[in-house]
Amino acid sequence: MSFKAPVGQIEFILGHIVPFAEVAATDLYGEATPETASAILTEAGKLASNVLAPLNANGDHTPARLENGRVRSSPGYAEGFRAIAEGGWIGLAANPEHGGMGLPQALNMAVSEMMAGACLALQLNPLLTQGQIEALEHHASDELKALYLPRLIAGEWSGTMNLTEPGAGSDVGALVSKAEPNGDGTYAVSGQKIFITWGDSDVTENVCHLVLARLPDGAKGTRGISLFMVPKLIPDADGRPGVANSLKVVSLEEKLGIHGSPTCVLSFEGATGWLVGEEHKGMAAMFTMMNCARLGVGMQGVGVAEAALQKAVDYATERQQMGPIIRHPDVRRMLACARAEIFAARAIGLACATAIDLSRATGDAHHAARAAFLTPIAKAYGTDTGCRVADMAVQVHGGMGYVEETGAAQYLRDVRITPIYEGTNGIQAMDLVGRKLADGGEAAMRLLDEVLDGAKTAQADHGELANHVWQAAETLREATQTLLERDQQQRFAGAVPYLTAFARVLGAHFHLRAARVGGTDHVALARIHITRVLPHYAGDLAEALAEAGDLEALSDSVMAGEFGA
Amino acid sequence: MSFKAPVGQIEFILGHIVPFAEVAATDLYGEATPETASAILTEAGKLASNVLAPLNANGDHTPARLENGRVRSSPGYAEGFRAIAEGGWIGLAANPEHGGMGLPQALNMAVSEMMAGACLALQLNPLLTQGQIEALEHHASDELKALYLPRLIAGEWSGTMNLTEPGAGSDVGALVSKAEPNGDGTYAVSGQKIFITWGDSDVTENVCHLVLARLPDGAKGTRGISLFMVPKLIPDADGRPGVANSLKVVSLEEKLGIHGSPTCVLSFEGATGWLVGEEHKGMAAMFTMMNCARLGVGMQGVGVAEAALQKAVDYATERQQMGPIIRHPDVRRMLACARAEIFAARAIGLACATAIDLSRATGDAHHAARAAFLTPIAKAYGTDTGCRVADMAVQVHGGMGYVEETGAAQYLRDVRITPIYEGTNGIQAMDLVGRKLADGGEAAMRLLDEVLDGAKTAQADHGELANHVWQAAETLREATQTLLERDQQQRFAGAVPYLTAFARVLGAHFHLRAARVGGTDHVALARIHITRVLPHYAGDLAEALAEAGDLEALSDSVMAGEFGA
Repeated sequence: MSFKAPVGQIEFILGHIVPFAEVAATDLYGEATPETASAILTEAGKLASNVLAPLNANGDHTPARLENGRVRSSPGYAEGFRAIAEGGWIGLAANPEHGGMGLPQALNMAVSEMMAGACLALQLNPLLTQGQIEALEHHASDELKALYLPRLIAGEWSGTMNLTEPGAGSDVGALVSKAEPNGDGTYAVSGQKIFITWGDSDVTENVCHLVLARLPDGAKGTRGISLFMVPKLIPDADGRPGVANSLKVVSLEEKLGIHGSPTCVLSFEGATGWLVGEEHKGMAAMFTMMNCARLGVGMQGVGVAEAALQKAVDYATERQQMGPIIRHPDVRRMLACARAEIFAARAIGLACATAIDLSRATGDAHHAARAAFLTPIAKAYGTDTGCRVADMAVQVHGGMGYVEETGAAQYLRDVRITPIYEGTNGIQAMDLVGRKLADGGEAAMRLLDEVLDGAKTAQADHGELANHVWQAAETLREATQTLLERDQQQRFAGAVPYLTAFARVLGAHFHLRAARVGGTDHVALARIHITRVLPHYAGDLAEALAEAGDLEALSDSVMAGEFGA
Repeated sequence: MSFKAPVGQIEFILGHIVPFAEVAATDLYGEATPETASAILTEAGKLASNVLAPLNANGDHTPARLENGRVRSSPGYAEGFRAIAEGGWIGLAANPEHGGMGLPQALNMAVSEMMAGACLALQLNPLLTQGQIEALEHHASDELKALYLPRLIAGEWSGTMNLTEPGAGSDVGALVSKAEPNGDGTYAVSGQKIFITWGDSDVTENVCHLVLARLPDGAKGTRGISLFMVPKLIPDADGRPGVANSLKVVSLEEKLGIHGSPTCVLSFEGATGWLVGEEHKGMAAMFTMMNCARLGVGMQGVGVAEAALQKAVDYATERQQMGPIIRHPDVRRMLACARAEIFAARAIGLACATAIDLSRATGDAHHAARAAFLTPIAKAYGTDTGCRVADMAVQVHGGMGYVEETGAAQYLRDVRITPIYEGTNGIQAMDLVGRKLADGGEAAMRLLDEVLDGAKTAQADHGELANHVWQAAETLREATQTLLERDQQQRFAGAVPYLTAFARVLGAHFHLRAARVGGTDHVALARIHITRVLPHYAGDLAEALAEAGDLEALSDSVMAGEFGA
């Protein structure tokens, strides 16, 4: 059996768990009626299941390769990308002014999840192109918008994001790429960028690089960085791809997974670039791109988790060892917990997406704060769930899971990048306990109030489950209060387990709501989550609140394995 | 920096944490004085660090391959195997009567851990050969012993273990391979076996297969299975490899990792075999082999975890992002917890090994029961720790961890087999809550009494830590009592989290002992474990005791993603 896009599961969450109806009630997103949403999800589901999923193994078996300095993509990827472009999926949430559909991010993220579950390596291309579209919509001049947006939205050209350099990863401010004014309004961009996803390809006629570089008068650190559009082929007067720009693909990385996605080392050698946004304000523009991409990456994790779980369930149904192994309690436990975690991660991601939509549509700062708070959780928990479920799927396959032919291992290898790129999950967690608690905990407490209110509402019909959720939320509230009293360095030491605990509690909250409004299946799944997945919050919070000083007290030598007398 | 065998860490555990001194005080193992042990560990450490570790990448880059029906091993592997054989390491714990050194398993397992950390794919060969030696020592006729043991112990021949068939994995009793008497005391063995590790090679002059097959009058299920020695080349009258037996290597599996270890599909086509042990009692003999191998696999997990952590610490020390990243609280947290978990997993493995040694040396049933109880914990927790730490090491490397060139990903791919083979970790956990609690919990309670006593002893100097450990052990005792009141199917539903909780508590117990008898470094590390790793027992036990019926209540369709109305 092959991948079936989870259209029904997504519709349930949009219809009953997150405030998508509120989104559709705004002027901005009035077109996103339930009927339209359903039609869109169904259509995207068909694309994912029927067109993209069959390409997934191709990329793994026949990786993208470099030939005479140009990338040749994996078999079928060009056709797959074309199908995505022609379906209008790249511009789903983009401004109609430039050819987009102007639909909510909630739908866009749901579609992204399904495409990522079908073929992660290929879906990275539209995901990054969408990020570029968003950055240009917010920061580019009208001229640049008019030139690039229609072509990116149509999928004629694709977009990349050039931050990382050999000496500048998480610390973007350390970058050394330079841009010098050419005197004609353009800039000469020079430097080497690494880990550039889809940094070149033959699936589009042009590749548009958004590059961070420092102007001659740019200060050190992140405040002196500017953003430039540097196209592979410089558009001619008619906007058609013209002469080649001064940049080249130095090499492709040989990676653990997503072999169908060419990860390039790019060298810019005085390449012609156009400033995007203001001088020295490149980081702000890049963050626009990254915030969208972060949620998108979280949904990639959910998508791969869905695909891996489906594969594991199929195998467990067919594989006979004293009856089908899906009847074995331990296998059932693994599959059931995975299904519960996927529901939770998907609901968190779509809750984040609807908060983004409501923020845009209403301008209400509370929605913006909610979206900002949920983004690192959606990214980290979505991708952790992706890895955990893909790992579980290998385990359910037993020895067959370790054999590449089966395909289970590919999900594990592919999804392993997601907790790393777009800001490692450690960075996400630091963002959560740093910037996102900098409001004195207001956004966190609002969310927790919702959880506590939800538990009270569920008390009558689901008393036992509601009590668990209430208790967990209350403990999390206290832990949040404790963290707020600590300085940032101390918070950082417990950031990751704190984020995980928050995700467990939010997940339980959404499950509890599903138990109330869904059928018996949702009650059964909520029980699995609340009695088996949620309870680990206790250990997470103990770890989150453990003495930060203990980590300093342990010497580097001990970590390396050398103990003193 | 390359792999440094953890000789000092192992010596500390043998000297202060597990009763190795008691082992050395027995008549059987009187030669294992501290000086001898230290010399042996130092020598094995040099072999691991200097000879084996440099081969690790070779196997990954140039996998074992099949050429004209014979396996060609990876570059340098033959020399590496020769160095292991010539050091006498294969026969370290084997009977001196046939050329072994007759030393304790505790030393053998420590040496295995170091070799596995250095080069897992190669170390599998001696590990399986040792398992075969042990099975032959216990079950083979004197004639077979005299013929095979000296050559296996010398590493002239190697040994394999042939259980699995396409339709018989965890359910060994489903196997269909047959053995028919030839009338001359030998048997004609026929059938297909899969997942045969080092099922052929050019590193030894002969390969000896122990094969499970059914005699014509063998009953269905595991009770009708017999064990046969089926050599690749039939020894001639002088015991030299003679004519080729009727068996062939059908193919090699393409796997996620351990590419240097040839995983064979073997076809036995009326191959000549000799009965090992009694007719229809093959499973008992195979279990001898498997029990030893299970602990050995647990130590493989520990070994790879050690290697991966060392690599991550090296990288974190060198990599600068606003200072070396080892100074960042979240990176420190990951490294520190990994070091704490490795100490715990290693101590559990060596505690199991000393229990095996004491059981053999004294005949005391309590030691045997302790060894039996600790074996599944050592296997599952050791290998889970291997996977968790290797995964952490990739994360610490960031984007570089996803690039194969770095080598971090190889550890993750290689170690991923260990929770699967020699009985999946789910099978280990079911063994723990099934067979190993079948004594009414006596072995479990004895261990927990030790933990509680240890906590009392530590009360004076390490009150806070001791209290945490005491509380955890007490909760685990109650949970064990609850499990004992449930039927086996119900226990199975919580088996894996129960095993994990037990490992956490045992690990904390050993850390607390280290805090008492080691220096300040051990106090610091014990704090990390007891405040950050141990507390997750609460969630584990909640999951272990969750209603088994909930898993039945959740339909297969929901697991597959299809919810009812």
